[in-house]
Amino acid sequence: MKQVLVIRMDLGMGRGKVAVQCSHAAVSSAEQARIRFREWYDKWIQEGQAKIAVKVKDENELLDLERRARAMHLPAYVVHDMGLTQVPTGSITCLGIGPAPVNIVDTLTGELALL
Amino acid sequence: MKQVLVIRMDLGMGRGKVAVQCSHAAVSSAEQARIRFREWYDKWIQEGQAKIAVKVKDENELLDLERRARAMHLPAYVVHDMGLTQVPTGSITCLGIGPAPVNIVDTLTGELALL
Repeated sequence: MKQVLVIRMDLGMGRGKVAVQCSHAAVSSAEQARIRFREWYDKWIQEGQAKIAVKVKDENELLDLERRARAMHLPAYVVHDMGLTQVPTGSITCLGIGPAPVNIVDTLTGELALL
Repeated sequence: MKQVLVIRMDLGMGRGKVAVQCSHAAVSSAEQARIRFREWYDKWIQEGQAKIAVKVKDENELLDLERRARAMHLPAYVVHDMGLTQVPTGSITCLGIGPAPVNIVDTLTGELALL
């Protein structure tokens, strides 16, 4: 099992902002898995909650990944930032996918560069 | 309600590593709150899941904060990294505190510098 956190690079977010957006995606995508894919969630927690952070160019690339994740019925969550700092209110900053089986997630995000 | 993610700076972790460690702390500390402090957890989710990332110098400073959080009966979780990349196996990398009421968390972490 693996969770993938996909950060959008064109907003120029700083290190702390990126960490917070990824954390938001991680909590919300995990919560979705806990409710809808309980077996995946439990296995992921037992295995130590594997996660990776990867990057995409812009909002289009992020939303395209989200569409493909939903078409594959994977847990997925898009973070809209409150925009109190650094980025405009409502900006899409990060996408969480999974936890889900590694081989399934990899067909979607396996080619993306690590953050 | 607020969750605080406390990153240890002396390991020299890169941006992606930091994001993943914070995400791990966020998921596990939130899960602890969900089980033991359900009212705080639900309120935090409703309010939009506020989080900040702050930094400490080293392991001692991180563990001292953990002790104080536990003495105050706050949800708290210390991340021990698997150590497959960048840091030695078992390294303590990050501490998650909360979600908990802002005024309580701030007595503990209000003086720490943002990541």
